[in-house]
Amino acid sequence: MIAVDVMSGENPPEEIIRGALRAASEFNIKIAFVGDQDHIENCLKKLKIQSHRGLKIYHASEVIRMHEIPTVACKKKKDSSIVICTRLVKEGKAYGLFSPGNTGATLVAALMNIGRLEGIMRPTLVTYIPTIKGPSLLIDAGANMDCAPDYLAQFAVMGEVFAKRVQKKKNPSVGLLSIGGEKSKGNELTLKTFDLLKDLDFNFIGNIEGYDIFNGDIDVIVCDGFVGNIVLKVTERVFKLTFEFVWQEIGDHLLQRIGFALAYPAVRKLRTKTDPSEYGGAYLLGLNGDIVIGHGSSDATTAYNGVQMVNLIVKNRVNELIVERLEKFGFKKRLDSRQK
Amino acid sequence: MIAVDVMSGENPPEEIIRGALRAASEFNIKIAFVGDQDHIENCLKKLKIQSHRGLKIYHASEVIRMHEIPTVACKKKKDSSIVICTRLVKEGKAYGLFSPGNTGATLVAALMNIGRLEGIMRPTLVTYIPTIKGPSLLIDAGANMDCAPDYLAQFAVMGEVFAKRVQKKKNPSVGLLSIGGEKSKGNELTLKTFDLLKDLDFNFIGNIEGYDIFNGDIDVIVCDGFVGNIVLKVTERVFKLTFEFVWQEIGDHLLQRIGFALAYPAVRKLRTKTDPSEYGGAYLLGLNGDIVIGHGSSDATTAYNGVQMVNLIVKNRVNELIVERLEKFGFKKRLDSRQK
Repeated sequence: MIAVDVMSGENPPEEIIRGALRAASEFNIKIAFVGDQDHIENCLKKLKIQSHRGLKIYHASEVIRMHEIPTVACKKKKDSSIVICTRLVKEGKAYGLFSPGNTGATLVAALMNIGRLEGIMRPTLVTYIPTIKGPSLLIDAGANMDCAPDYLAQFAVMGEVFAKRVQKKKNPSVGLLSIGGEKSKGNELTLKTFDLLKDLDFNFIGNIEGYDIFNGDIDVIVCDGFVGNIVLKVTERVFKLTFEFVWQEIGDHLLQRIGFALAYPAVRKLRTKTDPSEYGGAYLLGLNGDIVIGHGSSDATTAYNGVQMVNLIVKNRVNELIVERLEKFGFKKRLDSRQK
Repeated sequence: MIAVDVMSGENPPEEIIRGALRAASEFNIKIAFVGDQDHIENCLKKLKIQSHRGLKIYHASEVIRMHEIPTVACKKKKDSSIVICTRLVKEGKAYGLFSPGNTGATLVAALMNIGRLEGIMRPTLVTYIPTIKGPSLLIDAGANMDCAPDYLAQFAVMGEVFAKRVQKKKNPSVGLLSIGGEKSKGNELTLKTFDLLKDLDFNFIGNIEGYDIFNGDIDVIVCDGFVGNIVLKVTERVFKLTFEFVWQEIGDHLLQRIGFALAYPAVRKLRTKTDPSEYGGAYLLGLNGDIVIGHGSSDATTAYNGVQMVNLIVKNRVNELIVERLEKFGFKKRLDSRQK
C-alpha cells in the first residue's frame, strides 16, 4: 500500500485524490488517503467512487503548511497528514508515501518515524532534469544545504543506483558539478569529493560545468542541495523566460506573430517536457521507505506520476541495492569508525 | 590610456584589435596594444591603419593560455601580454586594461602588480545577467570559490556602487541568492551574510530564489563565485537549449517549420540580447585599476564593448565610491582589527 498525503499541497485535495486514483486503477496499486476524513469522503462521492479495491482512508486532524518550519511543525503537529503517512510506513502498513507538501517537513517526519538506511549519512533528494537526450538525474536537489565530501559521494552512489534500477541505464555516467572540467577546478567541497569519487568502482567522468548538464551525456549530476535547488529553479525559469523574451521581441510584427502561432504546438510540447509536474516530483532516497515529494503546486498529473514513481522505486528495490553498493564501497565501515 | 591584451583569447589577435580600434575612435579613447609587435603591426597594416591618435604598441614575447594554472603561469611568464598589461597600470601608463583571456591569470597578475583597493578583502567579478526588464548584475561571477560572509557583504557593496555609477540606477536593490525568500532559508554562508547585509544602510531586499533572478526587480544579485559561475553557464545554455528543443519538437511539421522561420528575426534578436559577448565580459572590481575580462571566445564585438566599459568605469569613478562606501560601512575597521 502507498500512503498519499492529500492535504499538504497548495492545490485542493481533490486534485491529489483524482491523480492518485488514476494511478491506482491503471497500475493496480493499493492506496491509503491521509487527511480530513469527511473531506476525502465527500471528494470520493463527487468523483462517484463508491468503493475502490483496497482503498483506505486515515484521518488526520492537522496539516503542515508550506511555510512552517519543519522541525517545529513536526514536533507540534503529531496528527498532521504527513506525520501520519510516515507512521503508516513505520508500522509496515504502507511501504511508501507520496506528499505534495513541504519538503523539509517530509524529510523531518521521515527521519523521526522511518529512519535512515544502513550506512547512510544524509538522506537526499533526487530529481529529473531535462536534457537534449531525455531526463538526467540531479542529486541533491535541495535537501542538504551544507555538505561534507562523504555526503556527496553517497549521493553519487544513490543516484547511480536510481539510474540503473529505475531508468534502466546500463552503466550510468556520474559527473560532479563544478566550474570547469579540469580536476583542479572547483571549491573545497568539490575538490575533496573528486578525490573520493575517482576511487569508487563506477563510471565517474569527472568534473562537469553548468553548460554540460543539458547535453544528455551525464546520467547523474552530483552537487550539494544549495547549488541543486538554484540550478533547478534557474533552469525552470529560463525555459519559460525564453518565450517571454521572444514574445517581447516580436511586439507588433504581424508576420512574426503568425509565425509564433504556427510554431506554437512545438512550444507547448516543450513546456510539457520541461514542466516539473510531469516528473512527479523528487525522490527522497536513503530512508527505510520509498518517498516521493511533489512540487509545491502539485496537481492531478503530479500525483498520478508521483504515486506511480513510489511504486516503481519499490518494485525495482532501489533501497536494497543502495545498501549493497555502500557496503561494497566501504561507506559503512567509514561511518562506523566515525561514530566510535 | 587603456591597455589591450590582444594575445590571450581563443580568437586571433586581429579580432581584438579591430574591436578595440572601433571603440577607440568612436569614444576618443587612447589605447595601447600589448602582444607580439610584428603581429600587431602587420594587423594594423592589413586594416590600413597608418597612425592612430595616441595608439601605442608594447611588445610581449609570451602568452598565457586559457588552461594554464594562473599562479604558476604568472610567475613563469613575466613577459606575457597579460602581465605586461598589469605592469602598465602599475607604472601609471594605463589606467585600466582589457583582456580576452584566462580570468584566473588576469586576477593573479593584477594582484601581483596592481594590488587591492583599500579595505578590500577579495577582488570580485561582476557581470550582467539578462532579465525581462534589462540586465541586472551578478556578483561574484566566478572569481572566489570559497567565501566568508564578509566577502559576500563587500561584493554586495561593490555591486551596488557599480549599479549606481555605471548603470545610473538611483537606489539599486540588492538580493542575496539563496533557496527561498524567508530569512531562515539558506546555507551557513548565506545565513551569516544575511545578518551582515541587513545592517548596512542600503536597499537590501533579503533572500531571493533562482526564479527571481530574471524578473528584473533585483538590480544586484549576490552569491559566491562557485554558484555564480554555475548560474551563468546554466542560464546561457538553457537560452540556447530552448530553441534546440523547439526545433526537435517541430521535426518534419512543415507548417511549424514555416512558423519558426517567420518568427526567427525575434529569436535572433533574443540571441544577441542573451549573448555574453554583447556585454563586453566581466568587470574585475576591488583593485587599484579598472579591468574588464572578456568571455574566452571574445571577438571584435566583445573587445569593442570591453574597451568601452573600462572607459566607463574609469569615467564614473567606481573605485573611489567603493572605497568611500566600505569605509562608511565600517569594513576598513573590521579588516584592520582582523590583521592585528
